[in-house]
Amino acid sequence: MAKVICSRKEDYSQWYNDLIYESGLADQSAVRGCMIIKPHGYALWENMRNVLDKMFKETGHVNAYFPLFVPKSLFEAEEKNAEGFAKECAIVTHYRLKGDPVNKGKLIVDPEAKLEEELIVRPTSEAIIWNSYKNWIHSYRDLPILINQWANVVRWEMRTRPFLRTAEFLWQEGHTAHATAQEAIEESLRMHEVYTRFAEDFMAMPVIKGAKTENERFAGADETYTIEAMMQDGKALQAGTSHYLGQNFAKAFEVKYLNDKNKEEYVYATSWGVSTRLIGALVMTHSDDDGLILPPKLAPTQVVIVPIPKPSTEIDEAAERIIKQLKDRNISVLYDRDEKNRPGFKFAEYELKGVPVRIGIGARDLQQSVVEIARRDTKEKNLIPLDHSVDYVEDLLSKIQHSLFEKAVQLRESKTKFVDRWEDFEEIMNSDPGFVYAHWDGSSEVEEMIKEKTKATIRCIPMNDELIEEGRCILSNKPSSRRVLFAKAY
Amino acid sequence: MAKVICSRKEDYSQWYNDLIYESGLADQSAVRGCMIIKPHGYALWENMRNVLDKMFKETGHVNAYFPLFVPKSLFEAEEKNAEGFAKECAIVTHYRLKGDPVNKGKLIVDPEAKLEEELIVRPTSEAIIWNSYKNWIHSYRDLPILINQWANVVRWEMRTRPFLRTAEFLWQEGHTAHATAQEAIEESLRMHEVYTRFAEDFMAMPVIKGAKTENERFAGADETYTIEAMMQDGKALQAGTSHYLGQNFAKAFEVKYLNDKNKEEYVYATSWGVSTRLIGALVMTHSDDDGLILPPKLAPTQVVIVPIPKPSTEIDEAAERIIKQLKDRNISVLYDRDEKNRPGFKFAEYELKGVPVRIGIGARDLQQSVVEIARRDTKEKNLIPLDHSVDYVEDLLSKIQHSLFEKAVQLRESKTKFVDRWEDFEEIMNSDPGFVYAHWDGSSEVEEMIKEKTKATIRCIPMNDELIEEGRCILSNKPSSRRVLFAKAY
Repeated sequence: MAKVICSRKEDYSQWYNDLIYESGLADQSAVRGCMIIKPHGYALWENMRNVLDKMFKETGHVNAYFPLFVPKSLFEAEEKNAEGFAKECAIVTHYRLKGDPVNKGKLIVDPEAKLEEELIVRPTSEAIIWNSYKNWIHSYRDLPILINQWANVVRWEMRTRPFLRTAEFLWQEGHTAHATAQEAIEESLRMHEVYTRFAEDFMAMPVIKGAKTENERFAGADETYTIEAMMQDGKALQAGTSHYLGQNFAKAFEVKYLNDKNKEEYVYATSWGVSTRLIGALVMTHSDDDGLILPPKLAPTQVVIVPIPKPSTEIDEAAERIIKQLKDRNISVLYDRDEKNRPGFKFAEYELKGVPVRIGIGARDLQQSVVEIARRDTKEKNLIPLDHSVDYVEDLLSKIQHSLFEKAVQLRESKTKFVDRWEDFEEIMNSDPGFVYAHWDGSSEVEEMIKEKTKATIRCIPMNDELIEEGRCILSNKPSSRRVLFAKAY
Repeated sequence: MAKVICSRKEDYSQWYNDLIYESGLADQSAVRGCMIIKPHGYALWENMRNVLDKMFKETGHVNAYFPLFVPKSLFEAEEKNAEGFAKECAIVTHYRLKGDPVNKGKLIVDPEAKLEEELIVRPTSEAIIWNSYKNWIHSYRDLPILINQWANVVRWEMRTRPFLRTAEFLWQEGHTAHATAQEAIEESLRMHEVYTRFAEDFMAMPVIKGAKTENERFAGADETYTIEAMMQDGKALQAGTSHYLGQNFAKAFEVKYLNDKNKEEYVYATSWGVSTRLIGALVMTHSDDDGLILPPKLAPTQVVIVPIPKPSTEIDEAAERIIKQLKDRNISVLYDRDEKNRPGFKFAEYELKGVPVRIGIGARDLQQSVVEIARRDTKEKNLIPLDHSVDYVEDLLSKIQHSLFEKAVQLRESKTKFVDRWEDFEEIMNSDPGFVYAHWDGSSEVEEMIKEKTKATIRCIPMNDELIEEGRCILSNKPSSRRVLFAKAY
């Protein structure tokens, strides 16, 4: 294999970057902090998007599209939200270029084309959307509004990493409006649950469900629900958030409705989103030193067929028969007849790209009516009778999906500790970080101190009754009534 | 019906705007020239996108995603392209806001956060994409590259109209790279043909295929192929373009490859795109004074069932049976059980929204085992035996699809003339504009003069051999070897 990927043991962070670029998921671009999502990465995102979109529609949502730009006066209307994003905004100030009088053939910004009001490239769309909801909502009969948007957003991050943190990224953002607080809270929990199902059932990525502390909440939210996944290096990754926004945006944009008693009331809101960051999460949950390992339910190509050593009439015929049957079962398959590359090269290439199942059809094996079927995750190979190969593959795909999830759960369990002494907490975070359930006294100050001392943050207050117990804060020793989840995070 | 739409006869332009807003396709936004695509409009766009995406994939293309921003130095690299778009660019100059020291709670652009190099919000992506292709293409074995992107783009138009011309719009842009001019030309013609099939077979919108004159070509293209549709008012709408870019971008970005004779050569390019403008085209091809008329193949909801006068056990049962059978045939259906609105209100509402077929289930009709089935386009209604209703609806949807196309062809024929005298040409363009096939001497000056005098432009040089004949230019009287298509245009 010509492509060189650093091993995970050597340098996990370098391994991640190498893998993203070498496997064809993404490429660097000429724009600071912005990446190119290459065809393999985009095909993965399309599969994620299609599954999520279906789940959103099944829970009653419809899609719409709001402007990319937010006028500054709208942007600043909800103060906490504005404050949270002000330091990382791309700002459009002009609307025209003109010829550079000094350097012929070059262009300069035309100073006469300055906008009266600057436009913020959306870092999130609450402001622009609630400014419209104002016009759409008059009475309780206009509620609820259950809208989702697939869009690009821009946050001018200083340190960027492909998929995990980029200046521009793709995401979906749900923005709903409700008549009562209870309805809005139910909605935010419903979408939190949708994200959980997506992460676990499709990405094969186990997650801890919980609520964020006040410090870690979305700017402008009354409550933020999160799903937190553990990456192979023991660090946490926030994979999706769902916010109960209370009446904050309704008040900022004066969105009131007449309730059924003909009384005016502010509307209640939620918002929720997941982004292309999930691709980074997927990579760091399953992949290995040889390349990507993708869960069959999301893999752009589920099965690859490689002729050994090269195509022939017999091999082509066997391949075509298998392809037809796989397609009938909605299994995506690629037959690589390219004679420029040898089987060994192809094996390495499809391992790098994470195709879950490989079928090798060899001339000699065909005489015995068998084919070699290999699974990407364990590299296990078996000779399977040609007639049973399609059944075997279908079953294997389902096995791989489950086994990836189980393996990820096991890794998480092995790196999860219940800790009661500060020395142990510090030791773990310094040496072999993972998930730590510890008591915390509920104060933002102590939360901050722990972060300063160890770089670990409270990932969430898990929705898990087993963590409710009397104890003492890991740092302050003050009383606490439940454990929370600490980890270093991406 | 509470909603008031101007009639087409009274003011076609006002009718269009009224209809767009009242039917729920779009709404105005707080951002100059940017609209909101509302759920009904977005559902229509999703259907268009899904069909097109499938057609692109069937012709060998894959999707990817490139950055929203183009650094100014890249933007200006291909001079003609830069010149063409320089006057309508949104430009990002800063990356941070800060608190306004004068007005507490307000924000101002932080002057210290000025970008070293300005970023252009993409009006089209040739520059950013070819700057990457440079790194991806080394030898003939890397070619062709067949990439498409679904994205938002921004062109700072001075006069905007919903869907037809907005500062931000959604589109797809294909960008392909080839080893030879012939291959690239074939690709641009192939996509031109895909657009034609989409317009005619799915949008039920007949189009004239042709090439643009030099004046009207895409900035940076050697050839632009276009499909031109006639709107109900006789004006033309450019519905999709496919460009052969020659080696212009390869030269601007130094993209060379080693050919099979080991010689360096510049790469050949195409680009092609359609946008949310197609929604405007769809509206102005089929709709009437009562609302939208949507072709069944693209309508978000193909069938609506209305209980008359209101739901009952019997009506619900009949409806559920029909719904199940329709869904089995992949026909989308909505059952409106809402008791707040009367049938007449619902009829008007779904006519406004353009649902192709309406099934009215009445208590009395049910006793005769019949239902009332109405088609949106002609408003024809028939009582159909319940048992045959699903077959009837399936057949009717297909009939409507064809009849919309036929009707649009007839309208176009009725407003298409072959004109040889300048007086007639002027008269037609002034009184009852339509498509005019006339001779032209091939000079840009005459083309410009005709535009100044009549506002008519050459829409295309049609790919139609029947137009090849000796004649004399409609204005200059110089010799001409073929007729071209003139019209006023959106």
